[in-house]
Amino acid sequence: MRNYNFSAGPSMLPLEVLEDVQRELLDYGGTGMSVTEMSHRSKAYEAINAEAESLLRELMGIPDGYDVIFVQGGASLQFEAVPLNLCVKKAADYVVTGNFSGKAFKEAQKYGDMVCAATSKDKNFTYIPRLDKSSFREGIDYVHICHNNTIFGTRYDYIPDTGDTPLVADISSSILSQELDVTEFGVLYAGAQKNLGPAGVTIVIVRRDLADRADPLCPTMIKWATQIAEHSLYNTPPAFSTYVVMKVLRHLKKNGGVKAMQKRNEEKAKLLYDFIDNSDYYTNAVEKRSRSLMNVPFVTPSEDADARFVTAAASNGLVALKGHRLVGGMRASIYNAMPLEGVKKLIEFMKKFEKENK
Amino acid sequence: MRNYNFSAGPSMLPLEVLEDVQRELLDYGGTGMSVTEMSHRSKAYEAINAEAESLLRELMGIPDGYDVIFVQGGASLQFEAVPLNLCVKKAADYVVTGNFSGKAFKEAQKYGDMVCAATSKDKNFTYIPRLDKSSFREGIDYVHICHNNTIFGTRYDYIPDTGDTPLVADISSSILSQELDVTEFGVLYAGAQKNLGPAGVTIVIVRRDLADRADPLCPTMIKWATQIAEHSLYNTPPAFSTYVVMKVLRHLKKNGGVKAMQKRNEEKAKLLYDFIDNSDYYTNAVEKRSRSLMNVPFVTPSEDADARFVTAAASNGLVALKGHRLVGGMRASIYNAMPLEGVKKLIEFMKKFEKENK
Repeated sequence: MRNYNFSAGPSMLPLEVLEDVQRELLDYGGTGMSVTEMSHRSKAYEAINAEAESLLRELMGIPDGYDVIFVQGGASLQFEAVPLNLCVKKAADYVVTGNFSGKAFKEAQKYGDMVCAATSKDKNFTYIPRLDKSSFREGIDYVHICHNNTIFGTRYDYIPDTGDTPLVADISSSILSQELDVTEFGVLYAGAQKNLGPAGVTIVIVRRDLADRADPLCPTMIKWATQIAEHSLYNTPPAFSTYVVMKVLRHLKKNGGVKAMQKRNEEKAKLLYDFIDNSDYYTNAVEKRSRSLMNVPFVTPSEDADARFVTAAASNGLVALKGHRLVGGMRASIYNAMPLEGVKKLIEFMKKFEKENK
Repeated sequence: MRNYNFSAGPSMLPLEVLEDVQRELLDYGGTGMSVTEMSHRSKAYEAINAEAESLLRELMGIPDGYDVIFVQGGASLQFEAVPLNLCVKKAADYVVTGNFSGKAFKEAQKYGDMVCAATSKDKNFTYIPRLDKSSFREGIDYVHICHNNTIFGTRYDYIPDTGDTPLVADISSSILSQELDVTEFGVLYAGAQKNLGPAGVTIVIVRRDLADRADPLCPTMIKWATQIAEHSLYNTPPAFSTYVVMKVLRHLKKNGGVKAMQKRNEEKAKLLYDFIDNSDYYTNAVEKRSRSLMNVPFVTPSEDADARFVTAAASNGLVALKGHRLVGGMRASIYNAMPLEGVKKLIEFMKKFEKENK
């Protein structure tokens, strides 16, 4: 039996994609071998790699002036790749709205004069600051934000105007969940394991004029230009992850693309937030306009009931609902692959639990 | 139909392992989800991660004084991780016996006074130099070798004595193919995609006294100590690849471990080399004592026949036999998962091709 998996990442994949992967696991497309066994220099794998890139370009509307690469190391490696690739003036502004944006800021400090331009730490990261050009220093290399904060359940409901300074965004937990205008950004990056596929591959989207200004001491493997020049095949790629990403992108395209996905995600999130807001048992602490479409943290009135909720939900097939230790309570991650049915089942369970525990 | 896949990497996996992975793909061990969907903080994944490490320790006889981590980025990232983690005196000696050892040497030069202590370039990398303590400088940080050279088909038939200087070895294409005494090395590293599992995960084995001397500017994600402290779970790991590695290690243990595997590999390689040596049509250029157990390059008397060989072999289910462009001709990579039957079929085909083309 398949569970409804509310994990913050790695997280659910579309069942149809997994079934497809399962079917092909011993023999991919008549090659007589598994994708996991295939030379990355083979025509079959080159086709997978090229299709993953072209589908991503199509679905996100990535213009020709941007490069797209599939790399290893997760967002955590990009926390250092960003300053190593972009620092010419050796100065950048960071907005700290949660745990990962804080980590990105911390790592970057090794590489120059990095300033925290704004933070929502004063209210335990329950809102997204309102920012405009005047929020940032002039003449710096870039401004860095984390678009959706997985742990605290917040999301930018607008894209800050940074003027001529390139905006860099970690979109690990919002990529492909809603429409984004790529041209508002200098660099976008995302680990695959939330909306795209299995962990192990990371997408980097770089405006071409920013793609080759890396520090001479930047490790070759971290330099974006290395993989751009080789279409992500400079060295052996994380082929299986990229292959599943390609399948997930095909599935998304077949189901109406990002616009249709955004509509479904808004519907799922509205159902859950409305239920919580109308309840006097469950609470979500996030400012309404800053609420994440993807990660919904909530609590009952007591930590004891929270713990029982998580256990009881799991035995009802609603798993991985435990909140992050920094927030406590519960967190329902309702990424693209979580069906509406899963959210409805969760709400039903919440009603039942409230009745039995209030 | 499954082919015999002679790819140099990614390469064949044991069919039994792939079938197991296929069976579990929608629901791993009753968790109601795929391994690809599972939080890396879940008990189920922590157990996979721990078992992969403990099986590797057992099979390779890795003593307690060594740490073992599973990281991203491939050997290519370790080419820079090695100097960034080990350079205190900022000096190291490299032995260049092929393409990848040359790349490792090149990348390292950014980080200190790196010297090529020996090379087999004079004879197009067809042998392994004889080295001893006197071959290396004294008082340096480490000596680096590549144990098996995938492209040129050579392998160290001995481990060079480097005295008190730690020996670092890239064992990507020989790990678990033969017994190695880990205590002769300071650091060992290997990409998974030849003998261990799907691409995307890299093993690093570090003697504990070498594990925490990284340069202060070493990126956190490249610092071995980062992942050692978190048992490879500092950030989201390449979970699917590690899971398949764990399955491959179980399979190896069940089939007699490294000793039994070495015996089978020696038998496979002997069959093929003996056939080539007794032929006046096929040639392998490598010095006999330096021949690889894993990668067997060979040529016919003409480039034209080589090209026809590769195509004809493929239509007989013997695929990915094309040699690397630096060497030309053919290359049969006969890693752990290549059955004896595959080598016999290759030899049969070679006989037939010779008869028809001589």
